[in-house]
Amino acid sequence: MFIDPWGAVLVEDYRKIIECFGLKPFTDEHLKLLPEPNRLMRRRVVFCHRDLEVILDAIRNGRPFYALTGIVPSAEKIHFGNKMVVENMAYFQRYADRVYMLVADIEAATVRGISLEESRRRALEFHIPAYIALGLDPRKVTFYFQSENKSVMRLAHLLSAKVTLSELRAIYGELTPGKMVAALMDAGDILYPQLEEPTPGIIPVGIDQDPHIRLARDLAKRFRREYGFIPPSSIYHRYTPSLDGRLKMSKSEPGSYIEIPEPPESVREKIWDAFTGGRPTAREQRELGGRPEVCVVFELFKQHLIEDDRELDRIYDACKSGEIICGDCKTLATELMTKFMEEFQEKLERARDVIPSLSFTTG
Amino acid sequence: MFIDPWGAVLVEDYRKIIECFGLKPFTDEHLKLLPEPNRLMRRRVVFCHRDLEVILDAIRNGRPFYALTGIVPSAEKIHFGNKMVVENMAYFQRYADRVYMLVADIEAATVRGISLEESRRRALEFHIPAYIALGLDPRKVTFYFQSENKSVMRLAHLLSAKVTLSELRAIYGELTPGKMVAALMDAGDILYPQLEEPTPGIIPVGIDQDPHIRLARDLAKRFRREYGFIPPSSIYHRYTPSLDGRLKMSKSEPGSYIEIPEPPESVREKIWDAFTGGRPTAREQRELGGRPEVCVVFELFKQHLIEDDRELDRIYDACKSGEIICGDCKTLATELMTKFMEEFQEKLERARDVIPSLSFTTG
Repeated sequence: MFIDPWGAVLVEDYRKIIECFGLKPFTDEHLKLLPEPNRLMRRRVVFCHRDLEVILDAIRNGRPFYALTGIVPSAEKIHFGNKMVVENMAYFQRYADRVYMLVADIEAATVRGISLEESRRRALEFHIPAYIALGLDPRKVTFYFQSENKSVMRLAHLLSAKVTLSELRAIYGELTPGKMVAALMDAGDILYPQLEEPTPGIIPVGIDQDPHIRLARDLAKRFRREYGFIPPSSIYHRYTPSLDGRLKMSKSEPGSYIEIPEPPESVREKIWDAFTGGRPTAREQRELGGRPEVCVVFELFKQHLIEDDRELDRIYDACKSGEIICGDCKTLATELMTKFMEEFQEKLERARDVIPSLSFTTG
Repeated sequence: MFIDPWGAVLVEDYRKIIECFGLKPFTDEHLKLLPEPNRLMRRRVVFCHRDLEVILDAIRNGRPFYALTGIVPSAEKIHFGNKMVVENMAYFQRYADRVYMLVADIEAATVRGISLEESRRRALEFHIPAYIALGLDPRKVTFYFQSENKSVMRLAHLLSAKVTLSELRAIYGELTPGKMVAALMDAGDILYPQLEEPTPGIIPVGIDQDPHIRLARDLAKRFRREYGFIPPSSIYHRYTPSLDGRLKMSKSEPGSYIEIPEPPESVREKIWDAFTGGRPTAREQRELGGRPEVCVVFELFKQHLIEDDRELDRIYDACKSGEIICGDCKTLATELMTKFMEEFQEKLERARDVIPSLSFTTG
């Protein structure tokens, strides 16, 4: 069983993934130990991890650790998976002593055929300001482009010494030299903050990015003697489901998901076409109640649109009891999503003003 | 049929190699067009090439081209193959507008397990001064370490986008990720001088390094649109034969070859044990004459020890006629080789004084 970090996989069973790849479930215990857990943690959208205990320990004892995320600027927009990553980054940046956001322009070139110049343009105009708009603190974050960071490029090259082709295939399936280089660069990115001084690190990702985490952790162990690396920790969020009710949003079917940003008319249209837990008729639904547990609109409330847990509970109960029906939820979801998009756009503009003052580290 | 640039291959038949890998023989025509050809060219120790015409043309018309060589600082000494490379570099540096010598410290790390620090130490203490002692002009040469050259590291990564694993295997045979990275770094080195402005380039190598040339040329063509690369040219010298008469010196049998440097007693001993074209008895040899065409000692004269063509002819004739016998040649070879080693040591010391004033480009 492979996870393809470069494709849109349909992940049918989170439990199977946890077992198959040696992940650990995110439990009540973790939640208790996290100070002021965010919405994604409280609602178990964050569902598994690797070595999260190491980070909990660092937070509790005020010891240094880093948080890191990256973006492949292949699309002109981002999606709600990126938003979840940034929300988790925003959580950890409160406690981490170092925070990194990298632009994977080499990966974009070797896997997606996007030139370095094009990656730079997209990242500066959109991806970096978008991440700031969603919660990354530019005063705390070290930004870099892979292609400008000598230490990362060097580390990626050197890491190749202790991995075999079979091991890479066991993690990624078949892969081209371009993907192999991208994988080594990703491992380089993840371990780069430890070159100066080995410390724990947390990488919040979607489950599709776990191959990179596994490779980085394997390599951290193999290069422990040379660099003293500590295998980095990771947490994983569930997918934001496709609007047609499938588990993961698919980039190949644009109607099936909402992007960031997205104009109001399009938001409305997509939400009104979304798969819900409704009954064949309004009357049946009033009688039997809806099924929020399979409803994409409820999932949007839970993952993204409703911050207050009690409010979410009220909607759940009102749906179950037939007090509200799908039209009510779609109206509310459209309203909240439109508001989110407006606020995002405002924050994006403000974040763009910050870009010229950013410095990008060259390693 | 594969050539393994990381191993000691026994190349039985130069003609077969020329045919198999699409090399072109080095002919009388080339020799005529090269101004003041060096000993290796005159004596056809240089025996084949790729696109040498492009360089001949640049020389004749005073157009810019570069010459490039590199060293993997895996051994503490060098061999006579390195000496031939440097002699050809010294030839082309007279006409080239840019000359490069790189230290393949990333390759040493990924393929040989030598740390960057150790590579740096060896290169500064020995390999770079040795190359200067043998004829590289430090005032003309741009030196760099792979691990310090951002442009080369970046280019190596990017080149991975347009090569498949099957193509790499067709050139190198089976290869580990570490060797793949080394191969891409080598292609990056070879094409790096063209990043600023595409110009022809000449890479003098031993035939065992041809895989790197082939890969670099293939990639040059594939990235022509992006970078305007001109496929680099190359020339190839024959191996200095093993002292036991086999075609290539083998690193795994230290008694079978003379290193640079090597102490006088050891030089004497090895030359006196060398395979020659002599007859079973001195009397037979006086009568029948020797066979310089299969004699390792004569090959040493031809490739390395006797600069004057007429003197070499005299020895050939005197051997063929039985006028001199193997003891005479071994005495002369020992004397010349010892003198070479002494002079090398002096030049090496002087070259070491130059090292602190060198600057290494970071790309």
